[in-house]
Amino acid sequence: MDKTQKTFAIGVDLGGTNTVFGIVDAEGNIVAQDSIKTQAYHTAEAFVEAGVKCLQPLIAQVGGIEQIAGMGIGAPNANYYSGAIETAPNIAWAHERVVPLARMFSEKIRPSLSCGHLPRNGESHPDGLPPHYGGGLGRGSFPVRLTNDANAAAMGEMAYGVARGMKNFIVITLGTGVGSGIVINGQLVYGHDGFAGELGHVTMVRGKEGRLCGCGRTGCLETYCSATGVARTAREILANTDRPSLLRDKPADQIESLDVSIAAGKGDEVANEIFQFTGKMLGEACADFAAFSSPEAFIFFGGLCKAGDLIMKPIEESYNQHVMPIFKGKAKFLVSGLMNANAAVLGASALALR
Amino acid sequence: MDKTQKTFAIGVDLGGTNTVFGIVDAEGNIVAQDSIKTQAYHTAEAFVEAGVKCLQPLIAQVGGIEQIAGMGIGAPNANYYSGAIETAPNIAWAHERVVPLARMFSEKIRPSLSCGHLPRNGESHPDGLPPHYGGGLGRGSFPVRLTNDANAAAMGEMAYGVARGMKNFIVITLGTGVGSGIVINGQLVYGHDGFAGELGHVTMVRGKEGRLCGCGRTGCLETYCSATGVARTAREILANTDRPSLLRDKPADQIESLDVSIAAGKGDEVANEIFQFTGKMLGEACADFAAFSSPEAFIFFGGLCKAGDLIMKPIEESYNQHVMPIFKGKAKFLVSGLMNANAAVLGASALALR
Repeated sequence: MDKTQKTFAIGVDLGGTNTVFGIVDAEGNIVAQDSIKTQAYHTAEAFVEAGVKCLQPLIAQVGGIEQIAGMGIGAPNANYYSGAIETAPNIAWAHERVVPLARMFSEKIRPSLSCGHLPRNGESHPDGLPPHYGGGLGRGSFPVRLTNDANAAAMGEMAYGVARGMKNFIVITLGTGVGSGIVINGQLVYGHDGFAGELGHVTMVRGKEGRLCGCGRTGCLETYCSATGVARTAREILANTDRPSLLRDKPADQIESLDVSIAAGKGDEVANEIFQFTGKMLGEACADFAAFSSPEAFIFFGGLCKAGDLIMKPIEESYNQHVMPIFKGKAKFLVSGLMNANAAVLGASALALR
Repeated sequence: MDKTQKTFAIGVDLGGTNTVFGIVDAEGNIVAQDSIKTQAYHTAEAFVEAGVKCLQPLIAQVGGIEQIAGMGIGAPNANYYSGAIETAPNIAWAHERVVPLARMFSEKIRPSLSCGHLPRNGESHPDGLPPHYGGGLGRGSFPVRLTNDANAAAMGEMAYGVARGMKNFIVITLGTGVGSGIVINGQLVYGHDGFAGELGHVTMVRGKEGRLCGCGRTGCLETYCSATGVARTAREILANTDRPSLLRDKPADQIESLDVSIAAGKGDEVANEIFQFTGKMLGEACADFAAFSSPEAFIFFGGLCKAGDLIMKPIEESYNQHVMPIFKGKAKFLVSGLMNANAAVLGASALALR
């Protein structure tokens, strides 16, 4: 590698509970990592200050800020274009507020051009610039990019995961919700306003019988195929039938998607039917997505993927049954290559390398 | 404009009946135009030869092949990546055959590097190269690009129509079928195999009650919202109810979408209901497309658009009713800016300018 090239990037996974800061090398190894509690601060300013303080020793470990190409942040309700978190309901300091997080971090991290050191506690400049900052406007600016979690996952797959070498693919995250990161011609799709890639909110069941979604609408893919949706399907089947199932061993309101996985693995008929139902709908949704962007692969990420073939086989079968003949058998169905790493940190760091 | 820049492009609209060749200047004016019958030839080779013969006087009119940047062809079942028409059911010489049309035209048009003249009738070289061809392999290659009709329309809107200056938009063609050309980050979306952008074939009605589609599946958007689909809706309502309607003045099997437009324009209740139904479904489909690529505009093209507000208003209303709150009220709903020009020729020519 070119010696003049900066060899590390900072990846940040900003979640509702913890914010993890990692320093990632060019091969996708996290060489240093630490975290802070996301909600322990009353203001965004205090959060950023704590974050920079947390980063200082990590940056020192790899030889200083000069070794670092930039920083990428994966966060809920993040807008890539504006670099801001826009009214994130689950983060107290970003609730009902637009927080320009990329700019705030950039200004706090911006290195002194003369000696490269970062502001220490109590040392920060009154206008937010590091001491010794001597460059013209923007000259010393440290690049910070922000995007949502699913887009960060897609960047991570392209840089370090199963999408290496691919130019057209879709990452679908199956967690509490259903998220997506869409890559076309090697670029993430942000749309004209920065909010594209909300595939959890395509409508799968139209009209009144669709499940109510957190977005205020009904019938969204997410209400059926997220981990939460799977648990909801389980509760519905248990309530509406008398069929025996291992899932009845637990109070219905405590059933989680993991219970369905475990029961299905033991051959439970109801649990397997739940995965068939979930996979069929995901396959139908992917068939529509193929008509849009004809990706080389659909890459699934998140807790529900741990069910392996129990979920992946029904998805692929349903896809090939429902997709236009011209696309049949062409797309790959893959589980994320980053499932065992700190994927969110890796993905966010990949954002900084673009 | 730079004098060394080639100032014209050839646009070709290859349809089931006619193939129109046009020479387009940098401002989007068709300065010369002629056509041949698409199906008057038994082989693709004979078709290409006739096409080049048709082009010769047009090219001469603008000062020879040196003035022309390249050629774009809009054709059914066209693949941009391969430059081939792949088994087009409605074209005899491309039926059950892959025809590498871009290469074939390029080789026939490739100018003589020494004198720039084109092969005249009876003068073509036995291996398909023009006489006097003196360059090394590829040196004299004339650029020819091929894409499907809807993608060509999208290119035309971006170069000369209502999408000038836009980077993210979707053209939806409402004709015999429903086609689409999707532009993201200023680039047409072709997908990994060249067949992306088949939005007429997203599934709007799932399960057995969906209408049978020409693609072999059921419930596709196209079966409801193409001109053919609108006529089908009219016949269904007339057959299933006793409601009075101007549409009953004609035998049901002869009703076309234009009849529905005319009746709706006269205040016919059934006809207006047909447009409401069609617009509602298109709006719901666009709401899903927004979740994918969040375009700045949806641009409608084709015969059905002549109904104007009768169709456009229901689409936009339904969209804003069904789309995620974050996208509400943001997208523009436009009718093509090329409806009165030879849009297909213009669009195809824009392909050559990229």
